[in-house]
Amino acid sequence: MTEALKLGATIGILGGGQLGRMLSVAASRLGYKTHIFEPGANPPAGEVANAVTTASYEDADALRAFAASVDVITYEFENIPTAALDILESQKPIRPNREALRISQDRLTEKAFLQELGLKTAPFADVTNADDMAKAVAEIGAPSILKTRRFGYDGKGQARLKTTADADAALADMAGAPALLEGFVDFSHEVSVIAARGIDGQVACFDPGENVHKDGILATTTVPARLSAGQRMDAVLLAANILNKLDYVGVMGVELFVTKDGLIVNEVAPRVHNSGHWTQNGCAVDQFEQHIRAVTGLPLGDGQRHSDVVMENLIGDDMDQLPALLTERDTAVHLYGKAETKPGRKMGHVNRIKRD
Amino acid sequence: MTEALKLGATIGILGGGQLGRMLSVAASRLGYKTHIFEPGANPPAGEVANAVTTASYEDADALRAFAASVDVITYEFENIPTAALDILESQKPIRPNREALRISQDRLTEKAFLQELGLKTAPFADVTNADDMAKAVAEIGAPSILKTRRFGYDGKGQARLKTTADADAALADMAGAPALLEGFVDFSHEVSVIAARGIDGQVACFDPGENVHKDGILATTTVPARLSAGQRMDAVLLAANILNKLDYVGVMGVELFVTKDGLIVNEVAPRVHNSGHWTQNGCAVDQFEQHIRAVTGLPLGDGQRHSDVVMENLIGDDMDQLPALLTERDTAVHLYGKAETKPGRKMGHVNRIKRD
Repeated sequence: MTEALKLGATIGILGGGQLGRMLSVAASRLGYKTHIFEPGANPPAGEVANAVTTASYEDADALRAFAASVDVITYEFENIPTAALDILESQKPIRPNREALRISQDRLTEKAFLQELGLKTAPFADVTNADDMAKAVAEIGAPSILKTRRFGYDGKGQARLKTTADADAALADMAGAPALLEGFVDFSHEVSVIAARGIDGQVACFDPGENVHKDGILATTTVPARLSAGQRMDAVLLAANILNKLDYVGVMGVELFVTKDGLIVNEVAPRVHNSGHWTQNGCAVDQFEQHIRAVTGLPLGDGQRHSDVVMENLIGDDMDQLPALLTERDTAVHLYGKAETKPGRKMGHVNRIKRD
Repeated sequence: MTEALKLGATIGILGGGQLGRMLSVAASRLGYKTHIFEPGANPPAGEVANAVTTASYEDADALRAFAASVDVITYEFENIPTAALDILESQKPIRPNREALRISQDRLTEKAFLQELGLKTAPFADVTNADDMAKAVAEIGAPSILKTRRFGYDGKGQARLKTTADADAALADMAGAPALLEGFVDFSHEVSVIAARGIDGQVACFDPGENVHKDGILATTTVPARLSAGQRMDAVLLAANILNKLDYVGVMGVELFVTKDGLIVNEVAPRVHNSGHWTQNGCAVDQFEQHIRAVTGLPLGDGQRHSDVVMENLIGDDMDQLPALLTERDTAVHLYGKAETKPGRKMGHVNRIKRD
């Protein structure tokens, strides 16, 4: 613990959404302050942070002042401009490190990295123009899915190919952005591992959760997931493999497809992850606190689960269920303080604790 | 739910200590903002609040501006000056109400109120001068304890009489403050009920916890407490009795002595209570969220316990144990962000979740 930040130190968080908000709350439990950097006005995380900087990632002065005011820098999203990271890193440590960001910012780089590690991924091909697309379709076929290499999340920047005849329309959807054609994987279900690695190299994983998506957005995570003991071990080992290779510090979300040929890595997120929200009510130390522990140099919690949990996202009009949810037994409601309800917007989630 | 505050509304909290801090975090889970009013600089609650006013309770302008900026006012301690409450109440509702504050601010008023309700208390006598003291000692004897009627907490403002010969010294300790001589109660253990009442009159109680004090300060709370089914029922009914009589809205801590003649009320606190901190890791809805739900007009959570918990306060040098506590299995650490460790100062607590 020689490297641990002192009580009362300040953690800088890039991004002021719900993940930053819950990181900030977790930091407070450990006696740390937070400072949020976010271009948008009135960020949800700002309501529970000690300080907020409202500025663009192009504002070098604001970035320098932010870095000067904090002891360590972390982030709640991966698409942070490189120039901003250069400025910040010259002043304070960024955890998880730049390499984790570089890998996860680009789907092609990420898939290549995973394959180098010996991990299985969906078949994929790089697509930047019509020629590439023709080759990719010939190789991968349909059904398949064309995804922008960068800046995609919650199903955004994606176009499905039901048949190879959809290729032109899908390519047009990318509007010239570099993309990746991914083959469909024949999987029975999707699980994710929320894994953490400390400054000292210690790795701790939460029990894998089983995810169900709706319209490309996570709908529910159920813990425990349907996995054999062997699959469970595989999931943890491959997550640890990724973290160690990156010399990673912090929490990472690793999404996996369960297939009859083993686990296939869908994608990784170098941050706390929606599919880890169940830990808030299932573990003594949740994913947010685990991340704060890692980036401040504290020892990791062991990630043991005391209760089974089903997490359900509240998206858009799901908020109409709120009065009923508040009266449900063993149900913890977590809202994000977003001013406006919009279709597809994540407004909150509930964790339902399951009795033995 | 017609009266419930809208999402994004602001809760004003009088007092910026650890209770305000944890109330603020709970408010964020329900999508509310908080504004802390606190005379001391850099209050712990301010680090996770949307706004902080640093001003004295004599500053009428600051009180008015604070009240204007919030939708409802609550508090984390009971000794708020009456004149300040008058100003605040003329602008916004104060929950719990003034009557609850009036009763609990004065030990004599509180004991008289409890007796009127038919509840048992320790024998007591009013002491303002040497004549009263002589009469009180004659009636109650020793061992007994002389307590100031107002502003006492964590064993402060108290003097013990081992024998009646200690009477003069004890009275001198009060420095002229109105006091109360309390007889000792022959109890086997102390428990407390954390009870809540909503705007609609709904009452919900958490399972009673068993408290152990050290040097007049709460050391541990263990849930479940050692109580028979009948005692458990008595505890809940008498708490509900108190809440209903006061038309109370919010969470109250009710400390009870367990004796062979039944439950004796030690004292009540019109706020979230240290002996309810276990609920953070034992229930889907904890005492802080329960209080926020009550004062904002949301339905109460049911208070069901999903896990047994032992809460242990971290007082002063107990903080030296922190490195070991952070690696303990099933142990949740909650720190208060206080800048300086001092003897007798509550720095944080841990909740140890007990496996079945």
